[in-house]
Amino acid sequence: MNDTGLAQIGDTLVNLCYSVAKSLTIGKMVGEKVRDSVLAKAIRSNPIYGQIGRRTDAGAAGDAYEAIMAYLWLTGQTTIEEIITILRGNLVIDDRTSRKREAEAAALAFQKLLETMASRLPKESQ
Amino acid sequence: MNDTGLAQIGDTLVNLCYSVAKSLTIGKMVGEKVRDSVLAKAIRSNPIYGQIGRRTDAGAAGDAYEAIMAYLWLTGQTTIEEIITILRGNLVIDDRTSRKREAEAAALAFQKLLETMASRLPKESQ
Repeated sequence: MNDTGLAQIGDTLVNLCYSVAKSLTIGKMVGEKVRDSVLAKAIRSNPIYGQIGRRTDAGAAGDAYEAIMAYLWLTGQTTIEEIITILRGNLVIDDRTSRKREAEAAALAFQKLLETMASRLPKESQ
Repeated sequence: MNDTGLAQIGDTLVNLCYSVAKSLTIGKMVGEKVRDSVLAKAIRSNPIYGQIGRRTDAGAAGDAYEAIMAYLWLTGQTTIEEIITILRGNLVIDDRTSRKREAEAAALAFQKLLETMASRLPKESQ
């Protein structure tokens, strides 16, 4: 999960899926960039975080989240439609939600997404 | 096609599809951002450009390209897989291609993509 190119693709994937999920939720087209701190919060809440090596800053943790999603998508273990559906189903915001509150809601939605996806990853070698 | 949110979603969509097409072509995972100048060149080569109003700079022309792709994707008239397949089939680069030459090759691939997609757009009202 330490592949820069994979994380870059995952960054774009996450931004696209979140933008569509948010657009559908608030009823208006918006393009969003998901902050590393949001993805870092989501991945740190999952047991998988203990398996991917010591990571101290939000940037590295966010990159790990992005690489996981890119890996699952590129290997056909999820689809963009599924990611959007899960995010949308767990994203409790409206068009008046503050940025701070939205970041918390987004972290929770990405946490739920990872919980759904984590079992599809290869098991850690013993 | 003058919707900012739609163009932002299209920007992410185009970056994601190009990143995957390039990664498959050169055999290495890379995340890329497609420059407005590349998309502007692609859209200016298409008759559709005459229909979307006077646009003078590359930023506005690139936004129009991105909005078109987002519209076609969000309305189910294309898929990310199809966009990637068309880009990949028309992207003549390898891992030693210069940035300048890649920009030309990418513009040609995006031009071919738009040629395939243009007939799916609503016809201009008379």
